[in-house]
Amino acid sequence: MGGDLAPQAPVAGALLALAELPAEHRIQLVGRSAVVAAELDRLLGGEYAHLAAHRARIDIVDAPDVIEMTDKPTAAIRGKPNSSMAIGIKMHRDKLTDAFVSAGNTGAQMAASQFLLGRHAGVERPPVVTMLPTMKDPIVLLDAGANVDCSAAELVQFARLGAVYAEDVLGRANPAIGLLSIGEEPEKGNAVVKEAHQLLLKTDLNFAGNVEGRDILTGGSSRGKVDVIVCDGFVGNVLLKFYESVPALIFGKLAQAGVSKETLAGAFKGFDYSDYGGAPLLGVNGISIISHGRSSPRAIKNAIGVALRAIESQMDEHIGRRLAH
Amino acid sequence: MGGDLAPQAPVAGALLALAELPAEHRIQLVGRSAVVAAELDRLLGGEYAHLAAHRARIDIVDAPDVIEMTDKPTAAIRGKPNSSMAIGIKMHRDKLTDAFVSAGNTGAQMAASQFLLGRHAGVERPPVVTMLPTMKDPIVLLDAGANVDCSAAELVQFARLGAVYAEDVLGRANPAIGLLSIGEEPEKGNAVVKEAHQLLLKTDLNFAGNVEGRDILTGGSSRGKVDVIVCDGFVGNVLLKFYESVPALIFGKLAQAGVSKETLAGAFKGFDYSDYGGAPLLGVNGISIISHGRSSPRAIKNAIGVALRAIESQMDEHIGRRLAH
Repeated sequence: MGGDLAPQAPVAGALLALAELPAEHRIQLVGRSAVVAAELDRLLGGEYAHLAAHRARIDIVDAPDVIEMTDKPTAAIRGKPNSSMAIGIKMHRDKLTDAFVSAGNTGAQMAASQFLLGRHAGVERPPVVTMLPTMKDPIVLLDAGANVDCSAAELVQFARLGAVYAEDVLGRANPAIGLLSIGEEPEKGNAVVKEAHQLLLKTDLNFAGNVEGRDILTGGSSRGKVDVIVCDGFVGNVLLKFYESVPALIFGKLAQAGVSKETLAGAFKGFDYSDYGGAPLLGVNGISIISHGRSSPRAIKNAIGVALRAIESQMDEHIGRRLAH
Repeated sequence: MGGDLAPQAPVAGALLALAELPAEHRIQLVGRSAVVAAELDRLLGGEYAHLAAHRARIDIVDAPDVIEMTDKPTAAIRGKPNSSMAIGIKMHRDKLTDAFVSAGNTGAQMAASQFLLGRHAGVERPPVVTMLPTMKDPIVLLDAGANVDCSAAELVQFARLGAVYAEDVLGRANPAIGLLSIGEEPEKGNAVVKEAHQLLLKTDLNFAGNVEGRDILTGGSSRGKVDVIVCDGFVGNVLLKFYESVPALIFGKLAQAGVSKETLAGAFKGFDYSDYGGAPLLGVNGISIISHGRSSPRAIKNAIGVALRAIESQMDEHIGRRLAH
């Protein structure tokens, strides 16, 4: 039931995912069962008829409550215990499923994931990860908005969590960590960032130093590429929302100038957020994948792919080990 | 001598400005006099020969020291008292000139402006203004990087200074002020931003509430356009440097896709920083215009235009009055 395009996008995304996943994998669709079943029938009777063979790999789990995108997170989790969010995460906690994926209310997913799954020892505030397309490889940015007013120690924790994510889910060996600041020199930045710089130098992480706003799209500074950029959730959220607003400007201006949609789509291939689908809430016990509220079927499919890579790489276990350092 | 393209850009920019300025205005070029005179001769003997009539409106003031772009600001000002920066600002302090414009070392210009001109009563930390092109009118963003770790009271001061700038230099009546945050609601943001929101509600400013990263390029939120966006210098600097890095990505991708330079230039007319030229360091006594280090002759010309509008609108006096509120 989650996301701006539900139930169509999650149900269609599940079908697309099953077509790519090895045959032993199944998907549980959690939501109002009549609504989900009807949507499944509708899709398999039309546009998705060619995927009908995968219907047998889908279970529908009834969840009568629905958390709206506008509900306050904590109130929603307490007041709607039979939401798809709560039931789906409980199923994961109880090992009935290997991961949980949602495009629903992000705040509610964060609250429910922490409350029901618990956090790894030492993690106070799980960060939200986002993938930023760049001119080179996509970069992991965290925190993308969950935690403002972070301490230096929290930024270091984000770096550790981001490193495991880059290694396990993206397959980057010894990922390079950049600290977002306003100059390359260690003495540039606000008080927290300057302290975090010094703390990061003392870790076993592959710390590449400070990166600036101009280094994001180029995939790193003149000193080398970075895989992960660490910042507090205030800066991360401002930056991410600004980033997401750029295509509308570009496409609008260029369409006015007579450039075709096909040319634009071709030029900016790889800059579509649905390529990434979603990212795990890092630091909770388990795998809770947060997808964009506007997720398309393709984005949901890719989010399920992220979940699979997190499971297969044993990301959750590695996080526990990395935080013990 | 200041800027990455000196002496060519400032000297050529002065010639272009004189061609547009009313006949009573003169320009003093401050720098190594032999170098400046030679550059002036070179330009007037070639590309700028058509502007030779304006040579008589230029004075050359000798300044033997040169502050490099890499010099540490305070050390440069103390150690190079005969730099063009120090001499030019002293001339302004001593009323020998109505404004000072430079594309040189920004930190040195900020330090020298504060030290030599002094600050308006109540201004602790003058903010740097930048103009951000949007899909509607350009927006004033401050602070663009001078002051990190700002208090809520400082953000309110930036709002007051930005309002005067928008009113006087840009001619915006009753400019709308947005506070950069991570949600529209007053309770969204980090601790300082939430406090600043409450303080701004109590001022006589036209406070439009919080704006998010996604509201910048659209020129405001769904609740209306904004003229000024206030943030601390850390966020402002990250955002500005990111913003400045976007064209390289767009132009690169579209050139690869076969879109011509002419189409691109036409589509993004108005998105060229040189349209704005520079902006005053707000809160010092006087008019010290900071231009981008990479300023072209056109950018320098426009920076001189900004200086003229600041003089004619009596911006400096208005700032004193507005801060007394």
